[in-house]
Amino acid sequence: MSTAKKRNKRPVILITNDDGIMAPGIRNLVEAVKDIGKIVVVAPDKPQSGMGHAITIGQPLRLQKMHLFEGVEAWSCTGTPVDCVKLAVDKVLHRKPDLCLSGINHGANHSINVIYSGTMSAAVEAAIESIPSAGFSLLDFSIEADFEGARQYARTVVEKMLSTPLDKHTVLNVNIPSCQASLLKGIKVCRQAYAKYEEDFIERKDPHGRDYYWLTGEFVNFDKGKDTDVWALNNNYVSVVPVQFDLTNYTLKNKLKRWEK
Amino acid sequence: MSTAKKRNKRPVILITNDDGIMAPGIRNLVEAVKDIGKIVVVAPDKPQSGMGHAITIGQPLRLQKMHLFEGVEAWSCTGTPVDCVKLAVDKVLHRKPDLCLSGINHGANHSINVIYSGTMSAAVEAAIESIPSAGFSLLDFSIEADFEGARQYARTVVEKMLSTPLDKHTVLNVNIPSCQASLLKGIKVCRQAYAKYEEDFIERKDPHGRDYYWLTGEFVNFDKGKDTDVWALNNNYVSVVPVQFDLTNYTLKNKLKRWEK
Repeated sequence: MSTAKKRNKRPVILITNDDGIMAPGIRNLVEAVKDIGKIVVVAPDKPQSGMGHAITIGQPLRLQKMHLFEGVEAWSCTGTPVDCVKLAVDKVLHRKPDLCLSGINHGANHSINVIYSGTMSAAVEAAIESIPSAGFSLLDFSIEADFEGARQYARTVVEKMLSTPLDKHTVLNVNIPSCQASLLKGIKVCRQAYAKYEEDFIERKDPHGRDYYWLTGEFVNFDKGKDTDVWALNNNYVSVVPVQFDLTNYTLKNKLKRWEK
Repeated sequence: MSTAKKRNKRPVILITNDDGIMAPGIRNLVEAVKDIGKIVVVAPDKPQSGMGHAITIGQPLRLQKMHLFEGVEAWSCTGTPVDCVKLAVDKVLHRKPDLCLSGINHGANHSINVIYSGTMSAAVEAAIESIPSAGFSLLDFSIEADFEGARQYARTVVEKMLSTPLDKHTVLNVNIPSCQASLLKGIKVCRQAYAKYEEDFIERKDPHGRDYYWLTGEFVNFDKGKDTDVWALNNNYVSVVPVQFDLTNYTLKNKLKRWEK
């Protein structure tokens, strides 16, 4: 029996994101799960995409109460997505929530994106703090994206998480294809594909003749496996990759043992 | 035979950090390995601790040539440590270096710190880009820290990396105790300890009566294993944790397969 059921009351669910508290994605996530538990939103006051697991050390943080979601306590935070999780636990909830959800991100967080993504880093931070979590991302950057399918599957995944006995360090990386909801073929539990951006900085000159560079890149999938998130998404499945924060490469650890001499 | 030896010439070594190009730690790393290869430094123009795997999306980046290290090409960069690696490969070196080194960080990057650390994220970024890499951290935050032991072991690890056939995605997280060099007991190849900061935000009021919060925390080791980096460092060993960027939790992946129905 899950922790939430054992307590015989509605689970407390913390919701955050990296696109900022005003993004349509987080509103869709709140709407999708609002009746499942007591929802508290603590999310960045501005877009924080690509912030990875950054934390704010040299500056203090602020919280601002927001009246954005009907019947839901919500706070905007001046920090990163990871800061939001830390501050929510310590200064808003004053306890660990039963679940932490992050997203719904505007844009993909499959494959190597899990490492750059503020959405996923917030989810990972929760799991480090013993709060099971999931990050949700829709493969559509548009501010006017259709979240119908994403909303349905976010709800399905949350229901499954609450009814499955899960380790407290569980993190799920859930990506949803951008096709029409009726065309989604279901969930595929996957591994992270080895696919990445091939960088290509655009070089420009400012009005004073000095160079500056814009990060751009082309996404390339080097991984031909059919058990990856990229494969699943290309085939209209919702990909679920369980993520861990023990980064030890155990195979190499054994190999390098002889360095100890 | 290593890649570098096959080429029968001095390896090209990219050096970066997260404390900024002016930090004593990066100077010590350059000095430690200067005669081993052709060194090129591309490092942040300001401290970037705790930046994790953040990248700069909404702003362009700049590079500035610096004359800081005798006989070594060096550039400061306005971006994050990960930006530095990307920009170095694409716009400074115009090729992949044979090795990327990051550090020497002022302060520990053992256990969960690997995830928050800009030093380690730069090394991980290199490995994603098929450049074997290592991050070095000394367990002493002081600007006047004694880098003698760290310098010796950084050199030893680099020599071992260049003489060992290593996968191109290799990343090593090397931490050095802050004791006197002569007291260091050698290398331990370890796993990442489950040890983390227990957050405790300090709450203050600004002159206008509004609250703000400073992130602080106490480091707690929950991991009693003797094969961890924290154990090794507490016992005066230099810890070497091989790191990977495939974050898939394969055990949980198998367990959740039934969600596919």
